[in-house]
Amino acid sequence: SERATTGLTLLEGPILLSEAALAGVEIVEVFGLADDSVSRSLVSPERWISVTREVLDRLAPTESPRGPIAVVHIPLPGTVTRDSITIGVGDPGNAGTLIRTAAAFGFDVVRAEGSVDLWAPKVLRAGAGGHYRTTIGARQENAGLIATVVSGGLMPDQLSPDPDRPWSILIGNEPRGLSEDEVASADIRVTISMEERSESLNAAVAGSIVAFELARWRKRVGGYGVAR
Amino acid sequence: SERATTGLTLLEGPILLSEAALAGVEIVEVFGLADDSVSRSLVSPERWISVTREVLDRLAPTESPRGPIAVVHIPLPGTVTRDSITIGVGDPGNAGTLIRTAAAFGFDVVRAEGSVDLWAPKVLRAGAGGHYRTTIGARQENAGLIATVVSGGLMPDQLSPDPDRPWSILIGNEPRGLSEDEVASADIRVTISMEERSESLNAAVAGSIVAFELARWRKRVGGYGVAR
Repeated sequence: SERATTGLTLLEGPILLSEAALAGVEIVEVFGLADDSVSRSLVSPERWISVTREVLDRLAPTESPRGPIAVVHIPLPGTVTRDSITIGVGDPGNAGTLIRTAAAFGFDVVRAEGSVDLWAPKVLRAGAGGHYRTTIGARQENAGLIATVVSGGLMPDQLSPDPDRPWSILIGNEPRGLSEDEVASADIRVTISMEERSESLNAAVAGSIVAFELARWRKRVGGYGVAR
Repeated sequence: SERATTGLTLLEGPILLSEAALAGVEIVEVFGLADDSVSRSLVSPERWISVTREVLDRLAPTESPRGPIAVVHIPLPGTVTRDSITIGVGDPGNAGTLIRTAAAFGFDVVRAEGSVDLWAPKVLRAGAGGHYRTTIGARQENAGLIATVVSGGLMPDQLSPDPDRPWSILIGNEPRGLSEDEVASADIRVTISMEERSESLNAAVAGSIVAFELARWRKRVGGYGVAR
């Protein structure tokens, strides 16, 4: 809620800071150890505040901070132009992992209602820079929807939807999954076959397997999978 | 280290407790809320200790315990008979997610040197019961090794190794990945193609994509993928 009001979030570690700097993100200030010359070289001197290890530990949103901690502006929503992953998960680690997968496979990202804030520090950490290498925004109106269901759907490697529409993979919350309405509104249902009906996959894993197969299909047929 | 000495670990939540009870795990004691009749019905009365919400919060290995907390014996290593995932990751969430994937796709699990303790509470939590629906033990001597590399490997869907050997997928630590020695010792190298060389996937996601494809291959050719 503070993030929604201020439009600011926290980045942790040198990798996220360098990704943000590269993407031209507006950096408000960076707290780091005085001898952290690598991080220091990434920001203009007036944005840098040297602190002790103890202060860094207290500032960090996670348990074992590797420093530095940067206060940055959350970018405005981008324009989604490619196939996408629609993230509706509450777990910040899973949300970040899906954003990382989206960046790796050339998907944009849409936030579903009820999802965790995609710019929360823990989501950024699990995203490993993916936030700054994909577009996060609203889904295209003509996008087709792909829902993952426990049984009765297509195998992910048999996906062959209309190539003239962008497609979005819907990922629901654990352990409940997608709502009945979400499944009913989907254009295509896929099922990742498992050993037994009682088995299940982590939501980020299931979404990433479907994304891997959809990206292979898109590479074959061309269209909305083009690079940004 | 205390786990290695005592042979005990902690399970959190009703789902893990019921999976463990179903698998015949030796339960030492269970701490739960007095009115948690579901969990209570899973254990014999002399193993149950009713506690307050405050005590439960203090006992729990994670932040937001859903209760109950069970002290259980770690099973002895099992006999690995199927294809497997060799887990060499330090992150407990990733290790547990890979165990969950292994159970879902019919793989056994091997712990690599340098990996997190696969029976740590956080690993059990991310495993979502998978620990009790697969076999964790030492790799077969005749197992072939599959390493994931950044470039130059086979596409995961082109995997077609010798079906008369069991195969194991090696998953290395983030962000370093597998060591040069591990890659050199592997029989097969696979590469998940991504948008750019700078991109990367979460270790559990990468391992799960390779496992998904290997399971599809094994289903076609028969052999070591048989149910336990």
